[in-house]
Amino acid sequence: MDLILLRYGEIALKGHNRHEFVRRLRRNVRACLKAHGIQGEVVSVGRRIYVRTPRVAGPGAARTQEALEPLSRVFGLVSLSPAREVARDIEAIVSECGRQAKAAGVRPGVSYRVRARRADKTFPFISPEIDRLAGEAIHRACEGRVDLSKQAEVTIGVEVTPERALIYSQQVRGPGGLPVGVGGRVVALISGGIDSPVAAWMMMKRGCSVIPLHFCLSECDRQNALHSVQVLSGYSHGWELRPIMLDHREVVGDTLRRLRIIGEERWSCIFCKRALLLKACQVASEMGAHGIVMGDSLGQVASQTLSNMEVISFAIPMPVLRPLIGLDKTEIVDLARRIGTFPAATRSDAACPFLPHRPVTRGSLEKLQQIARRLAEVEVPAQ
Amino acid sequence: MDLILLRYGEIALKGHNRHEFVRRLRRNVRACLKAHGIQGEVVSVGRRIYVRTPRVAGPGAARTQEALEPLSRVFGLVSLSPAREVARDIEAIVSECGRQAKAAGVRPGVSYRVRARRADKTFPFISPEIDRLAGEAIHRACEGRVDLSKQAEVTIGVEVTPERALIYSQQVRGPGGLPVGVGGRVVALISGGIDSPVAAWMMMKRGCSVIPLHFCLSECDRQNALHSVQVLSGYSHGWELRPIMLDHREVVGDTLRRLRIIGEERWSCIFCKRALLLKACQVASEMGAHGIVMGDSLGQVASQTLSNMEVISFAIPMPVLRPLIGLDKTEIVDLARRIGTFPAATRSDAACPFLPHRPVTRGSLEKLQQIARRLAEVEVPAQ
Repeated sequence: MDLILLRYGEIALKGHNRHEFVRRLRRNVRACLKAHGIQGEVVSVGRRIYVRTPRVAGPGAARTQEALEPLSRVFGLVSLSPAREVARDIEAIVSECGRQAKAAGVRPGVSYRVRARRADKTFPFISPEIDRLAGEAIHRACEGRVDLSKQAEVTIGVEVTPERALIYSQQVRGPGGLPVGVGGRVVALISGGIDSPVAAWMMMKRGCSVIPLHFCLSECDRQNALHSVQVLSGYSHGWELRPIMLDHREVVGDTLRRLRIIGEERWSCIFCKRALLLKACQVASEMGAHGIVMGDSLGQVASQTLSNMEVISFAIPMPVLRPLIGLDKTEIVDLARRIGTFPAATRSDAACPFLPHRPVTRGSLEKLQQIARRLAEVEVPAQ
Repeated sequence: MDLILLRYGEIALKGHNRHEFVRRLRRNVRACLKAHGIQGEVVSVGRRIYVRTPRVAGPGAARTQEALEPLSRVFGLVSLSPAREVARDIEAIVSECGRQAKAAGVRPGVSYRVRARRADKTFPFISPEIDRLAGEAIHRACEGRVDLSKQAEVTIGVEVTPERALIYSQQVRGPGGLPVGVGGRVVALISGGIDSPVAAWMMMKRGCSVIPLHFCLSECDRQNALHSVQVLSGYSHGWELRPIMLDHREVVGDTLRRLRIIGEERWSCIFCKRALLLKACQVASEMGAHGIVMGDSLGQVASQTLSNMEVISFAIPMPVLRPLIGLDKTEIVDLARRIGTFPAATRSDAACPFLPHRPVTRGSLEKLQQIARRLAEVEVPAQ
């Protein structure tokens, strides 16, 4: 094929945002090609982006097909089609339609349809006429059965532009969303588990530049987190994911020690999460980020209650974004599989070593503040 | 049919939560039947819930089918099957399988399979044997073609319990999630638009008892919000949705007037949303709720930026839950259609009357605090 036709959603494109959106999308597409060692030219033509990969000797389609898979993970794209360019001429169009239909497997008994779109309304044939003429050419070339519905086994697409016409038979789904980089910067807490990489991915999907932050508990955990970040990088072309790794014990050790001294270990999980969140806010303000992303889903485990979320995020100086808050575990697992972060997450080795016997499940704000005051006053013996 | 077999997800059912979860689910199922004027007995049998509706004169299946549709909106249920009870006897089981397969349309050329499950392992035939014997009976009764894959056109299910056996041919999908009432109380801001009812629905899905709060701007808006709440009520059996309607102008009027006086009208949207959120927190603490649900989706409109979310929720004393934060508009619209709140939302009449000429899209915390100080000091002339 000569090029890949990239389509972006138009629903998010109101007013001033559009120019910035498309510029950023082209930049991310270029970064994606570069990361995969694929040379290619990326240009806007009307409401489409074209990627032209150089023709190589031998099987010419190889480079285009190679680019298709990584590009299908670039946020902002809704679909992609490898296409052939022909002259802006009805004869050339219909005969290429016939050729591609044959290559796509149209034969007696196989259903097909043609869907034409004129980006250039001066072209002398209107879309239904192109559909009809191309449909007849396909019938002459390989028979087949016309089916104008979505159920057609083969759909041949035609786009007529001011200069050329594009013909395609394949349409690959893109991930939707907004181009990474238009949504602002966030710090995403990445554990070694299933949920947090999915949460980070959802914010990337809405255009965020993610700074992954991992609090290491074990080497296995660390490896899982790094592997998840590597998979997520495939969705973040144009913004490099540079994981920040901090030692979990160093961040929470003092707080947990103090809780033990005053005999309030049942509050460990809550104060531990608060310590991690406060540290994340500090990292975020150093890095110019404006939110913290967490993988919380309400009610998934006994401690993920609304009251615990309230006490955990009480007086945290940045918005805590919880994109999974309304999802079921089955939905999160399905997403993790689709994204590709699931296998790493399931290798997770152990429960948290600081888990108290009966963690608080219904923390109250009053009690939180009372314990916080006592924590500040307690004297910690030198170790 | 004799009863409806209800299945719940087991993934959320660890330890102590399970008893409470199932008890609440049965209670919500009862409330759903009652709301639809359907008499019925609701009992737990092993890991299933049975709904027995009384046999009525005439077409006996009517009551069961009537209950099926409302029950398919009860959160916590993953699937539902109208079933017939037969004796715990292999002869009775296979002959009922043959009867139901025939009624479900198995005939020469139609594929079918049998899926048996023994909740009682003392039954002398293991599941694959039941599958085989019932499969043979179906073949004798109506021929058809065995297909053990999910692609089979008809699937006949068998569940053997300690007392009886259940046979069914239909499986309706439930909405998943957790039973309303196990997730705690939240206040959900409901506008007249598309997003906020979906956000409320997602928190209901995770078991929240929702208190809908609407700030009225116009009669049309008010009607849309009330209609959305009415649709959402169909998913909230066991917790009555009682919308609280407040006058938008009354809540934000003073703040907007002060902003005008100091010439900072570009900050209207931010201070307006802060005023609404603060009011919502007040309502929430009066009603014993622990979070505020909003329909924000990052980047959907020019003002839904990360920095604006940061300044809007700065120092808000309760967690702000944004279940749509990581979703695309197309995904939100698909959900609204599935839920049934879409038609009302699209009747929305007008933009906000307080919208300034160029609203702030990148609010900074420093500026927010500076304006807040000036607002407090300004003298408002008597009106």
